[in-house]
Amino acid sequence: MDTKTSNFADWQQDAMGAFEPFLVDACRNGLRGAPARLREAIESGLLSGGKRVRPSLALLGCEAAGGDLEAALPAAAAVEMIHAYSLIHDDIPCMDDDDIRRGHPAVHIEFGEWTAVLAGDALQAMAFRVLANQACTATGCRQAGCLAEAAGPRGMVGGQFLDMNSRGSQASYREVEKIHLGKTGALIEASIQMGVLAGGGNPDSWVQFSRSLGLLFQATDDILDVTAQESEIGKPTGRDKEEGKVTLVASEGLDGAIEKATSLAEASTRFLEDAQPLRRSAVLEDLVNYILQRCR
Amino acid sequence: MDTKTSNFADWQQDAMGAFEPFLVDACRNGLRGAPARLREAIESGLLSGGKRVRPSLALLGCEAAGGDLEAALPAAAAVEMIHAYSLIHDDIPCMDDDDIRRGHPAVHIEFGEWTAVLAGDALQAMAFRVLANQACTATGCRQAGCLAEAAGPRGMVGGQFLDMNSRGSQASYREVEKIHLGKTGALIEASIQMGVLAGGGNPDSWVQFSRSLGLLFQATDDILDVTAQESEIGKPTGRDKEEGKVTLVASEGLDGAIEKATSLAEASTRFLEDAQPLRRSAVLEDLVNYILQRCR
Repeated sequence: MDTKTSNFADWQQDAMGAFEPFLVDACRNGLRGAPARLREAIESGLLSGGKRVRPSLALLGCEAAGGDLEAALPAAAAVEMIHAYSLIHDDIPCMDDDDIRRGHPAVHIEFGEWTAVLAGDALQAMAFRVLANQACTATGCRQAGCLAEAAGPRGMVGGQFLDMNSRGSQASYREVEKIHLGKTGALIEASIQMGVLAGGGNPDSWVQFSRSLGLLFQATDDILDVTAQESEIGKPTGRDKEEGKVTLVASEGLDGAIEKATSLAEASTRFLEDAQPLRRSAVLEDLVNYILQRCR
Repeated sequence: MDTKTSNFADWQQDAMGAFEPFLVDACRNGLRGAPARLREAIESGLLSGGKRVRPSLALLGCEAAGGDLEAALPAAAAVEMIHAYSLIHDDIPCMDDDDIRRGHPAVHIEFGEWTAVLAGDALQAMAFRVLANQACTATGCRQAGCLAEAAGPRGMVGGQFLDMNSRGSQASYREVEKIHLGKTGALIEASIQMGVLAGGGNPDSWVQFSRSLGLLFQATDDILDVTAQESEIGKPTGRDKEEGKVTLVASEGLDGAIEKATSLAEASTRFLEDAQPLRRSAVLEDLVNYILQRCR
């Protein structure tokens, strides 16, 4: 695929034509022979919708670094598996206790709590299986290291811990930022970095962009929880305040949060302009705007 | 280390002199900068005792294949991290709801349920981080694939699902075997296979031995739940029956279970004799006996 589009939605529609079948295959291969009900729970968590932002970033990172999108399919599938597992675990009663996800009953509602815990556990293993099942190259190994670091106690899980641990407290912007960099930013960063690695590029030069984009993404999530309707985002809104979550809106107010999101989007766009000429630069820029526009 | 001992306990004491500091280092490196309370929960799950059977098997597999024990330290640490995460998750209320582990309060008792879920999640990521942080060789990549497969929905997690799902039912020996091969056997197999890979050997030739040993290990666990005192095994006994678990004792009776365990031990020993001359053969044979003797 090498369309000339500068529109993220158009690019994504094409790219998902390659990604979705790859993801379904990787999932089914990893599940062949597994207990049927566990398989259903895992497929329900992984394959029933979602915006596929993280895999898109992996594929775009690969293209931007000069590679073919196909080279980043395993990384894209792996990061989506990690994301799906994190949502399944976040929704269980002892965590966020959410019943609805992507417009459907959460996995723990449909399949029960212990099956949800096991489905999440299995998906994490499946993510590393997909990476390891590529030809065993140094790139695959570096991708696994990158994903493991991002998913671990200093990354996504650490961020979720801080999020849970801060419930009901008043937090400064710096604390909110730390939570967001962990629970959302780490995996966004890893998506881009694994993609850039697959494309033969240097992930270090993407750190600033990845960080801004990760923070922007969680900022809009916090804002949408206040401003959106359930039908728009596929899960109940207004939950953050009910749960006493430390969010950007709680710390900065709604206007302040929108201001922050706007300046994070500007920082991301600036990186892309400064890095010109970059393949897929226009699509990445449109993605930044797409994320920002969701909350304005 | 190259002692001439044929005694597993002696061998293990020496080997753990290399393994424990490596594990502590790998754990602390992976946790540097993580939230303090999460770090404590993870260290409590990973570093407060345990028989270290799986890491020992990885190290022995490496030596048997002709390698130096040091080459298998990352694999040994990774498999222990996966094992520790599985125990933490197994103990939470919606799973086995056990309060005591290794003679101490379970992680969910000491740190709370959601911290236990996150500590387990983090440990799984840390396991793959340790493997990926070796020099990025084909061996490291194959080890990661082996561990991911064993830890996933067809292996350990699949076995735990079957175990949970069969509670209260009457199971045939074949069904018990399937549960045991998954929840315990898969990781025992992966330990040996990763070790053999580290030592430059062919893991395929170890499949029969690994399977017998894995089944033996879970068989003795089932037997000890009926015959042992809490003080001997560091967790309450008699729980299997209370929970309606499908076990070897429930399916075969106590005498039948001991008979099965004995014949699994014989099968393991036969492999070692047939495979002579094998480095560490005597230590492996003593390990088989050590496992069997625990339950007789």
